[in-house]
Amino acid sequence: MQGCCASLWKCYFEYSTPRILVIRSLKVGTLNRITQALVIAYIIGYVCVLKKGYQDTDSVLSSVTTKVKGIALTNTSDLGLRIWDVADYVIPPQEENSFFVLTNLIITLNQTQSRCPESNSSGFTCASDRDCTVGLRDTRGNGVQTGKCVNLSAHVKTCEVWAWCPLEIESEPPIPPMLGDAENFTVLIKNSIRYPKFNFNKRNILPQVNTSYLKHCVFSRITDPDCPIFRLKDMVTEANEDFQTMAVHGGVMGVQISWDCDLDMPSSWCVPKYSFRRLDNKDPENNVAPGYNFRFAKYYKNSDGQETRTLMKGYGIRFDVMVFGQAGKFNIVPTLVNVGAGLALLGLVTVVCDWIVLTCMTKKNIYMEEKYSYVDDFQLLSTEAP
Amino acid sequence: MQGCCASLWKCYFEYSTPRILVIRSLKVGTLNRITQALVIAYIIGYVCVLKKGYQDTDSVLSSVTTKVKGIALTNTSDLGLRIWDVADYVIPPQEENSFFVLTNLIITLNQTQSRCPESNSSGFTCASDRDCTVGLRDTRGNGVQTGKCVNLSAHVKTCEVWAWCPLEIESEPPIPPMLGDAENFTVLIKNSIRYPKFNFNKRNILPQVNTSYLKHCVFSRITDPDCPIFRLKDMVTEANEDFQTMAVHGGVMGVQISWDCDLDMPSSWCVPKYSFRRLDNKDPENNVAPGYNFRFAKYYKNSDGQETRTLMKGYGIRFDVMVFGQAGKFNIVPTLVNVGAGLALLGLVTVVCDWIVLTCMTKKNIYMEEKYSYVDDFQLLSTEAP
Amino acid sequence: MQGCCASLWKCYFEYSTPRILVIRSLKVGTLNRITQALVIAYIIGYVCVLKKGYQDTDSVLSSVTTKVKGIALTNTSDLGLRIWDVADYVIPPQEENSFFVLTNLIITLNQTQSRCPESNSSGFTCASDRDCTVGLRDTRGNGVQTGKCVNLSAHVKTCEVWAWCPLEIESEPPIPPMLGDAENFTVLIKNSIRYPKFNFNKRNILPQVNTSYLKHCVFSRITDPDCPIFRLKDMVTEANEDFQTMAVHGGVMGVQISWDCDLDMPSSWCVPKYSFRRLDNKDPENNVAPGYNFRFAKYYKNSDGQETRTLMKGYGIRFDVMVFGQAGKFNIVPTLVNVGAGLALLGLVTVVCDWIVLTCMTKKNIYMEEKYSYVDDFQLLSTEAP
Repeated sequence: MQGCCASLWKCYFEYSTPRILVIRSLKVGTLNRITQALVIAYIIGYVCVLKKGYQDTDSVLSSVTTKVKGIALTNTSDLGLRIWDVADYVIPPQEENSFFVLTNLIITLNQTQSRCPESNSSGFTCASDRDCTVGLRDTRGNGVQTGKCVNLSAHVKTCEVWAWCPLEIESEPPIPPMLGDAENFTVLIKNSIRYPKFNFNKRNILPQVNTSYLKHCVFSRITDPDCPIFRLKDMVTEANEDFQTMAVHGGVMGVQISWDCDLDMPSSWCVPKYSFRRLDNKDPENNVAPGYNFRFAKYYKNSDGQETRTLMKGYGIRFDVMVFGQAGKFNIVPTLVNVGAGLALLGLVTVVCDWIVLTCMTKKNIYMEEKYSYVDDFQLLSTEAP
Repeated sequence: MQGCCASLWKCYFEYSTPRILVIRSLKVGTLNRITQALVIAYIIGYVCVLKKGYQDTDSVLSSVTTKVKGIALTNTSDLGLRIWDVADYVIPPQEENSFFVLTNLIITLNQTQSRCPESNSSGFTCASDRDCTVGLRDTRGNGVQTGKCVNLSAHVKTCEVWAWCPLEIESEPPIPPMLGDAENFTVLIKNSIRYPKFNFNKRNILPQVNTSYLKHCVFSRITDPDCPIFRLKDMVTEANEDFQTMAVHGGVMGVQISWDCDLDMPSSWCVPKYSFRRLDNKDPENNVAPGYNFRFAKYYKNSDGQETRTLMKGYGIRFDVMVFGQAGKFNIVPTLVNVGAGLALLGLVTVVCDWIVLTCMTKKNIYMEEKYSYVDDFQLLSTEAP
Repeated sequence: MQGCCASLWKCYFEYSTPRILVIRSLKVGTLNRITQALVIAYIIGYVCVLKKGYQDTDSVLSSVTTKVKGIALTNTSDLGLRIWDVADYVIPPQEENSFFVLTNLIITLNQTQSRCPESNSSGFTCASDRDCTVGLRDTRGNGVQTGKCVNLSAHVKTCEVWAWCPLEIESEPPIPPMLGDAENFTVLIKNSIRYPKFNFNKRNILPQVNTSYLKHCVFSRITDPDCPIFRLKDMVTEANEDFQTMAVHGGVMGVQISWDCDLDMPSSWCVPKYSFRRLDNKDPENNVAPGYNFRFAKYYKNSDGQETRTLMKGYGIRFDVMVFGQAGKFNIVPTLVNVGAGLALLGLVTVVCDWIVLTCMTKKNIYMEEKYSYVDDFQLLSTEAP
């Protein structure tokens, strides 16, 4: 009992440390130091400097609001001279992190719920009523068939449909785009960010930007890098696209705002970086279903209470504002963890050196003798004999 | 001075390596090799093969555009025969990563700003004007009370309100849903992705898909796995829901597109995987506030300039398109890090084996004698005595 | 040949373990144990308890739908007495993870496409037609100039423009806000979440919440922490803002729902935490371009088919619902990894202790003699000589 206690007591005060063989040699020593140097270089260079391993990181929380400005003038046979302002060409009027600008459209006026012959392209040509099925609704068609076969033109007959008549004109979007003026529209992008872990707030309207400057400035990498007002054409051009070409069929643009901040530095160094790229693919050899368009309508009631609508197939550019960012600030925990990992890595140096020393060196036998001692359990002498 | 220099010099060429005791034994050896095998198996199997520890990874950037097609026919007493096309049932006409399809609705025609009796259910029944408060606006009510008490029906009197009159009919959504035809609507989902770190772009309209195919194809796991056009009913069915049931009260569907790509392989192997699930909960025993609906209105002005509106309580299915994905490509840094961690783990083998060897083995005393040597600082002999 | 085989055979059964020097000493032992205690404390306290290193984690998938309720009454010279309900003040009627409530507006009635003098502030004052350029469209202006110079008022002449006339009144938003009643609006936020990896689903309408309770309850930290219906004013107040002040120029509010769940605990412990903050910056000393507003229009056709519109510059509060969350559940792999890392860290204890022992201790020479043995490669005796 007493003995047990004592041995435990002894145990407590025991400190075990490996017994070390020190080899003093030009070759081996140099090899050792070089390997150590490499590891330390890696730790300092990569872990500390490049990856900032001594910092605790947090990712960005962001809110974006946008405001487009500009006026376009169109002059078409059916609409006549017409002005388009922001309330006309931004659809829907407000979105989260995104805004759409109408650049081209196919318009169909005064549609009413009534009967009219199916379009030619839909492939519902007919000779007599027998070729048409009452109530048939087909994804290719524009309405529900009434079962009648009527004249589309002098020579062509198609099945009659119950639909919004007259049917939408099926044609390619006009070139040049109707709202080509959109290239001169400007958009004010307001972006407020927050790093919750560090309770750090900032917005892309920097302190030095005042109201008067904001009234007339336009973003430019060289002259106005801090101005949060962007010309649509400039954004598209930076993405190596031609605005007028893109405006015809529409598309999706990405406005990337990156907020990578080192909060150990003065917070004024933490500024947004803007970049622009086209998000929807448009590679020439696989240009199936290009661009971006959707249909929307304005509904009216004429004097005798009948509902009519103006259908628009709107082509345009949707700008998705994407905010990225990571902030780092010194923190003891990640520092310790990384230093620990580094030291552990230093332990591997021995593994590497040992291997070289005990295989390649001329004096390897001497080293081995010193390094290793043996306990032989079962006699293998027999096999050791020649 | 000279001596100091020399010792430093010596120091530089010193290489310290632990002195090793080699035990040659059937049991111990086998144990050792087995443990090593386990660790190596873990490193190769889990770290390398499963987790692809030799790869640098990047997460996906994506843009989504959608286009719904289809026609529905409704026949109601107040609307008569009516055609619904994409401009009618997609609200709002365009959204980012999401689209809403109207499947059922309660419609209230010709509302004007005027006076009418409060609805019965709101609980503002009254006997005389004294029971009504002028200017009272209650979340349960439909308007601002005028203070009068008027006849709702022959026998019921309720407070009069200033509101959009006539008030919305309070009823459950019709069964079957008015736009049940929506199950046959199709949607083209265009999704372009990008892995910035590897400058890799791709879209879900694969190279082999051509325009003519895209005109008629519909997604199907078996026959058309590459077709980006989806039938609404198919999506809902894959989520183990019944479309007609879901259409009554509406809901939220998730369209998940996953782009997990191993960029060490040919890029043609990187294809999207589609999956569908219902996002809003509908468990029977906690079915409070089910489905998804919202109110919207169309505004008109009648001939004498007075504003009227058609109020719609729209039930429908919102499809949220969610794009996931991670790409991996060989990179030397993560490889080294993982191999290092693996070797470090090998070091732990000794810890485990030692423990077994020095506690369980019969010859443990022999081993201990050889392994350990002691420096005794303070004499504990007394306690060691029996 | 036979010998080679044998040596390989021997090799296989070899087990190498470092030879250890055990120092029995009060000081050294205590030092050793303390350092070990520290490391173990770190592993248990930080890695296991705080960071739950034994858990596999998954991040949340979420879907949000919202429904606003409430009525506002405005009384203005141009609109007269007017009721605003959800279909009037929520624009667009449905969004993903976000909803906008109109709180203030500047309204311009009966705009038509016609000619009118440019506004004063735009800076296009003129003396004669020569000062005006035909077809000039300027971002500051409201239309396309016709080249005429006309009377704006008795004394001021400005260039005539082709635009939506009459032009929008340029004024600050009214104080108090027109729809100040919005502070009493309530919103039902339905949020369903999912942790795919653990196949765990939950919604923010908890099982104990029944329909009758949901009809009248309003969220309150103290009395109704589980009610998913929020009063707009309460949300704004919790973000330390004054609703009426914010309502004037509008802004962006963040509704944060956090779902941090320990799935080793009963799932009923996994409940949402709500928090509210203002997302758009409003620091007094940099209050450039404050608030949030956008323009939208309602389009009408008068009896003779001419299109007119009502333009509204809407100020309001956009509520972005942000769902965060991470779930953890016991898993063997991360457990092993973390324990391994912990043990590796224990190895570092020796490094630290050795350094202290061999530099600071009085008996360091004795220890060194025992710990180290030397192989001297090239005789440095000469330098060793005094």
